[in-house]
Amino acid sequence: MEAASYITRRIKPLEVLDEEGLELIERNADQLLEEVGIEFRDDPEALAVLKEAGAEVEHERVRFPRGLCRSVIQAHAPREFVQHARNPSRNVRIGGPHTVFAPGYGPPFVRDLEGGRRYATLEDFRNFVKLSYLSPYMHHSGGTVCEPVDVPVNKRHLDMVYAHMRYSDKAFMGSVTHPERAEDTVAMAKILFGEDFLRKRTVVTALINANSPMTFDATMLGAAKVYARNNQACIVSPFILSGAMSPVTAAGTLAQILAEVLAGVCLLQLIAPGAPCVFGTFSSSISMQSGAPTFGSPEAALVVYGAGQLARRLGLPYRSGGALSASKIADAQAAFESANTLQPTLLAGANFVLHAAGWLEGGLVMSYEKFAMDLDQLGMLQTFSEGVDLSENGQALDAIREVGPGSHFLGCAHTQANFATAFYQSSINDNNSFEQWREEGRLDADQRANQVWKRMLEEYEMPPIDPGLNEALLDYIAQRKAAMPDSDV
Amino acid sequence: MEAASYITRRIKPLEVLDEEGLELIERNADQLLEEVGIEFRDDPEALAVLKEAGAEVEHERVRFPRGLCRSVIQAHAPREFVQHARNPSRNVRIGGPHTVFAPGYGPPFVRDLEGGRRYATLEDFRNFVKLSYLSPYMHHSGGTVCEPVDVPVNKRHLDMVYAHMRYSDKAFMGSVTHPERAEDTVAMAKILFGEDFLRKRTVVTALINANSPMTFDATMLGAAKVYARNNQACIVSPFILSGAMSPVTAAGTLAQILAEVLAGVCLLQLIAPGAPCVFGTFSSSISMQSGAPTFGSPEAALVVYGAGQLARRLGLPYRSGGALSASKIADAQAAFESANTLQPTLLAGANFVLHAAGWLEGGLVMSYEKFAMDLDQLGMLQTFSEGVDLSENGQALDAIREVGPGSHFLGCAHTQANFATAFYQSSINDNNSFEQWREEGRLDADQRANQVWKRMLEEYEMPPIDPGLNEALLDYIAQRKAAMPDSDV
Repeated sequence: MEAASYITRRIKPLEVLDEEGLELIERNADQLLEEVGIEFRDDPEALAVLKEAGAEVEHERVRFPRGLCRSVIQAHAPREFVQHARNPSRNVRIGGPHTVFAPGYGPPFVRDLEGGRRYATLEDFRNFVKLSYLSPYMHHSGGTVCEPVDVPVNKRHLDMVYAHMRYSDKAFMGSVTHPERAEDTVAMAKILFGEDFLRKRTVVTALINANSPMTFDATMLGAAKVYARNNQACIVSPFILSGAMSPVTAAGTLAQILAEVLAGVCLLQLIAPGAPCVFGTFSSSISMQSGAPTFGSPEAALVVYGAGQLARRLGLPYRSGGALSASKIADAQAAFESANTLQPTLLAGANFVLHAAGWLEGGLVMSYEKFAMDLDQLGMLQTFSEGVDLSENGQALDAIREVGPGSHFLGCAHTQANFATAFYQSSINDNNSFEQWREEGRLDADQRANQVWKRMLEEYEMPPIDPGLNEALLDYIAQRKAAMPDSDV
Repeated sequence: MEAASYITRRIKPLEVLDEEGLELIERNADQLLEEVGIEFRDDPEALAVLKEAGAEVEHERVRFPRGLCRSVIQAHAPREFVQHARNPSRNVRIGGPHTVFAPGYGPPFVRDLEGGRRYATLEDFRNFVKLSYLSPYMHHSGGTVCEPVDVPVNKRHLDMVYAHMRYSDKAFMGSVTHPERAEDTVAMAKILFGEDFLRKRTVVTALINANSPMTFDATMLGAAKVYARNNQACIVSPFILSGAMSPVTAAGTLAQILAEVLAGVCLLQLIAPGAPCVFGTFSSSISMQSGAPTFGSPEAALVVYGAGQLARRLGLPYRSGGALSASKIADAQAAFESANTLQPTLLAGANFVLHAAGWLEGGLVMSYEKFAMDLDQLGMLQTFSEGVDLSENGQALDAIREVGPGSHFLGCAHTQANFATAFYQSSINDNNSFEQWREEGRLDADQRANQVWKRMLEEYEMPPIDPGLNEALLDYIAQRKAAMPDSDV
């Protein structure tokens, strides 16, 4: 059975806040925007646009009259949008009851069972693009699936964007580390999709982190403006570790996140009305003992759920969650933390889920084994999202009539008819007896995952691409690289 | 901060079925009760009582007119009840928005990192009672936390019940393997609590498994009747592995579970009106490839959620879930499967959660390390259950005002004031840097858990007991053992 190219949830999100709580947090966000304001650094254009729209600008601090951001957003921003892939059957719908999984983003290191922990390379980058391409449960190719540190920083984005375009046919993310790199991404997307197509449709999503608390910097804003002006999607994401970038409490963190998203998306809607924007947040906490980031915590889950409710009320697609972990290896800690993030992510109604596979060490490491484990978990979440089948076959009354008291369902007609699709089949878990498991070498989940990702890469076949387009992309990259200094940071 | 003696959830359960779906499943359950019926084996009294109440009895098959079971249950069974512990501050409330965690039940084997997998002994049994006693997140001492196979089967229950009474002061479960052993449990409870107290109050819960599909046997019924007649609580639990004991579909499984619970609880309410009964179900699936039980599956989660909704509509407390896993060791598989059961357990609104810690190998093994890991997870769930604090301190507006854009919250007054209680502190997870973790010996979660449970047992101190009561209990046990043959099965 081929999985859908994205999830359509048949189960309503879990709500951790009632109407009164939501209104309180919205009021608090408005109050923060009005009283404290948001800093937009080194970006005179942003300040001018916001002032023009009615905000009060003092140096780089912008204070918003109550309701201004919300009304701008609700007048222009789409509630959901399609991100097109070069293979149209891989298009993803971001918003509403849909959930799209994308791989981990940003790790400078990779880890596998044999090679241990080491700096990531372009080959690793391509491998993770391939693994995402191969899994029916990974709907999106992601962005910086790892940092290819063997490529100079100023040229890296070209190879990364090309890898997504060439080694996969799924939707992907653009470079945000410099406005020029965003321009390169858009230029390459124009080659791949055609200028006309791109003018009307979204083919790139971009992760625009806020410098929480309550600050946007020129790099991120510059990249965001490039994408928004080209009708490409910006995920405006407060990057929150409660206790460091926000208060230690969920209600305080939620008000701050909402304020930051309101300000950032408002700006983009003023600059490019109607450009797709996502209510994003990366949200976890720090340890009060050591200051280290923690993941899979109950406090982080409350924020993920609460922010989902706020996003839906605002009318924007929602990005949060992932398979987050602080563990150094793919052990029980990694699994508990990841599951404790993934479950809230889905049940919070997240529409776009970055870091859905591979993460270890709080995002410093992309692990091959963890990636394979997380893919398996995503398959389970996709199955769960289908909800309870209430068809006649789902009700199965005839099966119970046929079997009757004291017998078993193993061979009954209904079981035989549903044999192939009855249950999600895990690629990682070992359900055999202790004796069989012992005979087969006492493998743990990490070792089985090692076999899984290697088999996947062995079976990988490159998706076809128009040779002319491919050449045009390679020409663009060669020309751009030639115009750049050999290396810079 | 001392944790409460049970959880009061501030978050409403997740619902996977709408009104229409729930009514459909309830109709189907009624239809199964009317058409197919339930077998009550080797229990003429049960057949007579049910016939007297209006059911149609043919040999051992009992068919129920529509609505009969529901009306009997709703006329008599309490919606929630208190199970009293010998230390009143440990009393637990079972039903409503409350959740009570109890340890694993039934494993003949134990496992620890040094000793590996081996048959359980009475010493292991006592150790797990001690560990449950020590954890603020384990609210209940459970029942057969492991099978003490070094004690003869016919005498084992006496030592188990005594261990709960002596090594803990939390609430516990009674023996169900023979009606006489249930009588022993009640007799010992009368010694500990006093006859008067026990007549009016519930101090024992008992796990009464149905022989799914749609069968109750005389052993379980016999024990259930002993407890119900003494006003003690029966958890009527269809034991379901979908594909073997029920259809492969969630809707079919739910209708069957509801039918079995309706019949079992109806009988007990006819025999002992008003005795506490719990809507139970142990629910997972089998692998269609091997027939082996699987845990943490998305299909099982749907059943756990759906059955919770059915229980609340029926008006009975709900038992399901746990930290279930088929893994042989406490690896990532064990953690993923456990988290994927524990999260639905809590969010489904389960009131009594057996198997909340320790389980491996589908219940064949009680693991010391897994037990320590699961306790940590239960602490997180308890914290999550508290929901979002919307007090002024929770809103933290002053903190955001104080810190302002671009700074951090590490040292602000609000963070300092909330330092000690801001975040749940994991006993297992390592959030340190890779370098520090490497320096400290590259321990995985399993190895850290090993340190945790050993430290706990070292710190254990026996709760005080009235010496006279203790002697009376020991006398009763000695007298009963003397009257029994040396060994039997």
